[in-house]
Amino acid sequence: MTFTFGKDFKLHVYGESHGESIGVVVEGVPPGILIDTSMIQQELDKRRPGSGHLVSSRSEKDQVTIRSGVFKGKSTGAPITMTIPNTDVDSSSYEEIRHIPRPGHADYTARVKYSEYNDYRGGGVFSGRMTAAFVMAGAIAKQVLDEHGIKVLAHVVQVGKVRMEKEVSSEDIRRNVYQNPIRCADIDSVSEMKAEVEQAKAEGDSVGGIVECRILGVPAGFGEPLFDSVESVISHAIFSIPGVKGIEFGSGFGGSLKRGSENNDSPVIDDGGIQWSKNDSGGVLGGITNGAPIVFRVAFKPTPSISKVQSTVDLEKMEETSIQITGRHDPSIVPRAVPVVEGLAAAVMVDLMKRNASQIHH
Amino acid sequence: MTFTFGKDFKLHVYGESHGESIGVVVEGVPPGILIDTSMIQQELDKRRPGSGHLVSSRSEKDQVTIRSGVFKGKSTGAPITMTIPNTDVDSSSYEEIRHIPRPGHADYTARVKYSEYNDYRGGGVFSGRMTAAFVMAGAIAKQVLDEHGIKVLAHVVQVGKVRMEKEVSSEDIRRNVYQNPIRCADIDSVSEMKAEVEQAKAEGDSVGGIVECRILGVPAGFGEPLFDSVESVISHAIFSIPGVKGIEFGSGFGGSLKRGSENNDSPVIDDGGIQWSKNDSGGVLGGITNGAPIVFRVAFKPTPSISKVQSTVDLEKMEETSIQITGRHDPSIVPRAVPVVEGLAAAVMVDLMKRNASQIHH
Amino acid sequence: MTFTFGKDFKLHVYGESHGESIGVVVEGVPPGILIDTSMIQQELDKRRPGSGHLVSSRSEKDQVTIRSGVFKGKSTGAPITMTIPNTDVDSSSYEEIRHIPRPGHADYTARVKYSEYNDYRGGGVFSGRMTAAFVMAGAIAKQVLDEHGIKVLAHVVQVGKVRMEKEVSSEDIRRNVYQNPIRCADIDSVSEMKAEVEQAKAEGDSVGGIVECRILGVPAGFGEPLFDSVESVISHAIFSIPGVKGIEFGSGFGGSLKRGSENNDSPVIDDGGIQWSKNDSGGVLGGITNGAPIVFRVAFKPTPSISKVQSTVDLEKMEETSIQITGRHDPSIVPRAVPVVEGLAAAVMVDLMKRNASQIHH
Amino acid sequence: MTFTFGKDFKLHVYGESHGESIGVVVEGVPPGILIDTSMIQQELDKRRPGSGHLVSSRSEKDQVTIRSGVFKGKSTGAPITMTIPNTDVDSSSYEEIRHIPRPGHADYTARVKYSEYNDYRGGGVFSGRMTAAFVMAGAIAKQVLDEHGIKVLAHVVQVGKVRMEKEVSSEDIRRNVYQNPIRCADIDSVSEMKAEVEQAKAEGDSVGGIVECRILGVPAGFGEPLFDSVESVISHAIFSIPGVKGIEFGSGFGGSLKRGSENNDSPVIDDGGIQWSKNDSGGVLGGITNGAPIVFRVAFKPTPSISKVQSTVDLEKMEETSIQITGRHDPSIVPRAVPVVEGLAAAVMVDLMKRNASQIHH
Repeated sequence: MTFTFGKDFKLHVYGESHGESIGVVVEGVPPGILIDTSMIQQELDKRRPGSGHLVSSRSEKDQVTIRSGVFKGKSTGAPITMTIPNTDVDSSSYEEIRHIPRPGHADYTARVKYSEYNDYRGGGVFSGRMTAAFVMAGAIAKQVLDEHGIKVLAHVVQVGKVRMEKEVSSEDIRRNVYQNPIRCADIDSVSEMKAEVEQAKAEGDSVGGIVECRILGVPAGFGEPLFDSVESVISHAIFSIPGVKGIEFGSGFGGSLKRGSENNDSPVIDDGGIQWSKNDSGGVLGGITNGAPIVFRVAFKPTPSISKVQSTVDLEKMEETSIQITGRHDPSIVPRAVPVVEGLAAAVMVDLMKRNASQIHH
Repeated sequence: MTFTFGKDFKLHVYGESHGESIGVVVEGVPPGILIDTSMIQQELDKRRPGSGHLVSSRSEKDQVTIRSGVFKGKSTGAPITMTIPNTDVDSSSYEEIRHIPRPGHADYTARVKYSEYNDYRGGGVFSGRMTAAFVMAGAIAKQVLDEHGIKVLAHVVQVGKVRMEKEVSSEDIRRNVYQNPIRCADIDSVSEMKAEVEQAKAEGDSVGGIVECRILGVPAGFGEPLFDSVESVISHAIFSIPGVKGIEFGSGFGGSLKRGSENNDSPVIDDGGIQWSKNDSGGVLGGITNGAPIVFRVAFKPTPSISKVQSTVDLEKMEETSIQITGRHDPSIVPRAVPVVEGLAAAVMVDLMKRNASQIHH
Repeated sequence: MTFTFGKDFKLHVYGESHGESIGVVVEGVPPGILIDTSMIQQELDKRRPGSGHLVSSRSEKDQVTIRSGVFKGKSTGAPITMTIPNTDVDSSSYEEIRHIPRPGHADYTARVKYSEYNDYRGGGVFSGRMTAAFVMAGAIAKQVLDEHGIKVLAHVVQVGKVRMEKEVSSEDIRRNVYQNPIRCADIDSVSEMKAEVEQAKAEGDSVGGIVECRILGVPAGFGEPLFDSVESVISHAIFSIPGVKGIEFGSGFGGSLKRGSENNDSPVIDDGGIQWSKNDSGGVLGGITNGAPIVFRVAFKPTPSISKVQSTVDLEKMEETSIQITGRHDPSIVPRAVPVVEGLAAAVMVDLMKRNASQIHH
Repeated sequence: MTFTFGKDFKLHVYGESHGESIGVVVEGVPPGILIDTSMIQQELDKRRPGSGHLVSSRSEKDQVTIRSGVFKGKSTGAPITMTIPNTDVDSSSYEEIRHIPRPGHADYTARVKYSEYNDYRGGGVFSGRMTAAFVMAGAIAKQVLDEHGIKVLAHVVQVGKVRMEKEVSSEDIRRNVYQNPIRCADIDSVSEMKAEVEQAKAEGDSVGGIVECRILGVPAGFGEPLFDSVESVISHAIFSIPGVKGIEFGSGFGGSLKRGSENNDSPVIDDGGIQWSKNDSGGVLGGITNGAPIVFRVAFKPTPSISKVQSTVDLEKMEETSIQITGRHDPSIVPRAVPVVEGLAAAVMVDLMKRNASQIHH
């Protein structure tokens, strides 16, 4: 297993869904950053299960404690450790199905890889609950980026078959996303999206969706190709979120249908500096930021936990059987993924900023 | 810059488009693998510019030399170094446009990051020519995988707006891909795809496309989540290929439109072992292989080098200008990307196989 | 800063001397290892300040809590997180001398590197207290090694100017070391060594010393040269212990005085296997273990904290001044370093064992 | 095996003693450094076998070729690849003794680890010839350090039982070391040292020795404790040199005999800045440079290749036998190790300089 991410700004995550706590040690925080604990808590709150019918009914307070790395309100340069306790744990439903992998889940693969030693309770380390660690680390990263004028904004652009209609500005995202349970920047699309989730829930089913993320204020020059291009490093991080099955930058899959003459962005001079005619490149050329906003979209599969009866196998008896999953689950993980995508994107940006700084010009 | 990829099976790439040579040091090759130089050469030949009108007219023989790590025809366990010379180099066209970034290229970002020291000739390290190093390393990886019954097969499923019509079997891919210049496994789609490329070329333009890759024979248990899930590591590698702007696994972006009950794969018992009802997961659950083929698709943007006049800026004079790119360029990079995608996918598989082996069960 | 060590078995350390707690996240523990919490506690107890006059009077209970990675008494393969609280914290004496670096301490260098943001209380991250994290991680490593018949035994061979007289067997070390406060395997040398420490203390001074470590039961083949030779990796770890200024393997510095014909170990056949005539190589040839015990010695400087008046500078006033250090300090760190050396050596061994396993023979 | 060293300034080494060539890919060279090929050649020449009777009679010209990363005489920021050919190769003497490990060599351990696939000719990757790669990389590092006023100076302070008598200044080292075949900075000690080597040679034997290295002009603040202290990273690198069995910084093993009041260096104010009363710390406090010269000493074992008859085993017949090594070997490796120690020390310094730069202060 690998619970570490990053090169100059590193996340070391620990915990299990039904263990004692979830935590993250963040290594490489520059010294002297103002660390606001209440902001970390706000980020965690954005990812908490919310108003009941749209998301899981597990109710964790996710109260963060900082255990190291902060002195007199500022980062020291030493690792910042943050933890949240696991309190609302009910493992009973997992004991009886431990030999019966849930379709679409890691139950089978975890068992193959870690043998009978895997902690299967609540999905163990494969639980979406681990993303709370990403959010905590992301909150630190955002506080670092704030001092450099860099902002990370994610929002839901598709839930199930409902796609956001309108073009939204970054200002729309900033204003609207956390004002509605869908985390959609287009207020007019929210009710239809909610209906999509509710209908799936009513049918004992689930929906997937797409989260878009924009990173504003990034100067040209971040990214370390060949192998640590901006796209490589962001995608590496994002595929760590349970349920992610695709990512695209700029015009992405749609761009593969275009002609070069359509898809190429031309630089223009604006305000004495270089700007871009449009942003089909998603802010990245040759793996390096070009000064335009970084834009990427993330495809989430529908939550595998559904209450419909599904066919599966009993691994002890080695015979086919069926399963009906009970317990607390999100009919759509997509809204809760928004602060998680932001958090990991922020962590990557700090890492790339530091790596760029390590290059000494002459 | 980062020219190193992998953890237990590592690629160290060097070279520039118009430098002395391109090479790769492959570290972590298990000792005792039969190394067939002619097979490496064949892989390189698959990626060479071909029959003229579909691809670039730069004519390099790409003759590989093995410089270390092989003794009596087998790997020793020490790094295997392979190089190809750069011989057909004409840098003249780059000198005059060095302050005038080509739209869609890394010219601008490379200059910002590496200042005036960047080797701009032929795109320098940002050239597609660097992918020859990926192919050489991939050839070694494939020879390792062969001994474990793992095969990597890529093919073109879309060129410009033309999408392959038919479902193809893995046997179709194996048989057909390298028999046609488009690298399409569906022979019936080739002529339409060729026409798409030729029309773009005739218009001084270019097209993008999509490459699909299937990895067969992978046992369940590869992958190191949280952070080094199969998807994370493959996407990290694949975004190192110039022109890639998207990747998806299994049902991918399409899966985000489905219900959980549709998208979940159910395990079934077949031949006394676990198989899967279908493969919307693309062979990966919880970041770990489940024994089904790994399937992913890669979106390439249209080649940025086009002969149409484009607007850009002169970075010395800081004024807007226009550019018409001459020289040798591919109207579509997509067919040549097929062995490159295969090579990197193979390298990732050896890495994950070794990482899995390092876990000692009790 | 770098708080992470290891490649396949990793330590992620956090904490400060006067912070909330000290902890370590151990990544890469093989699944299925019996984890005995009381054994971890015993290891911590070996390193605790002891019977007063020989060591520091800070009295921490160092009660360990496991926060992740253990399920039903065994490792799951996920990170094992262990923490101890800081309870007996008195930071008052540090506030007044924060601009006045203590000679021989990291006060000055920490301030230069981390500016005013460094947590200077109790030495912050430079405190010997951080080694408790090494011991906790080492306790896990020892439990892994136990299942492979590998034992790590350290002992004090020199304190100040007093060197252990007798040759000791590994059985002597196992039996005697933790039965006396000096951690010396030769019982007959203990009283003279105690006297050396006590005299230094009486004079307001301190002494250094040498710890020897033997690793028994290591098979031939561990070590990853060129760059990750056994000596490279062990020395890297050991120089992380505050106060270490030298390390030597086998005949070491003494060997540099010998002829090749004296220093070369010859293999012999014993019991049908390969043994060695003697062990001047310290169990390592060409960076790889040869099956003989790994033997190395570690030189510790005298503890810099002494109560004698010393000259130093005031960094605010930029003038020379003097300092007399009060508070709780060890007149010799050497005895307490014994379990720390063992812990790090054990961690390195697990790492090298896993790395060796990742090499797949054909 | 691990042929890679460094984090932000990386060496990727390849080659075998009797392979096609030896090379190194140096990754992380800052762009814009003047790269003087003749200086690289001079460094290589310093390590070449010299005037016959003191060192090996293998006569390689070691002519360096730069294959990438330099454009218009300056580094581009891309990897710099340098190679030297192997030309004077005579592998015949190795074929007959391939099952008979030479005492003190890696023959046995290499065979255990890499099975029959190990390239045993001339020691393969375990040959001292690999250190030519360290010297080439070090030459690049020195050219980077030059622009920052940092100098690395090594010299021989002991050969066999002969220790340099006089204290030498850094100016003595700079002036004298490469003017005599012993690489001793004290001219008056050279003849006695030569005699020591010659006598060993006459007896078919070999001697070890000690190399001291001083790094001048390093600012305070380099080093990344806890785990990447200056001592940790330098020792890691240095133990990669064949034959090294010990290292000590500052007062080192001798310091372990001192009192704290003797061994502590006090800061003083000089010229408006901080200087140190003496340098028992060897320029490093708490793992971070303090602005004084870094000073360390390296113990080399006597060369294991001697022409005296030695006992060993035949691994095929599994019986004891004897061996008399013929061929070309150094009676002392120590003089030739001087530029190797310098080269690796320089590489570490660039790495730590870059890592320090990646820390962004606020």
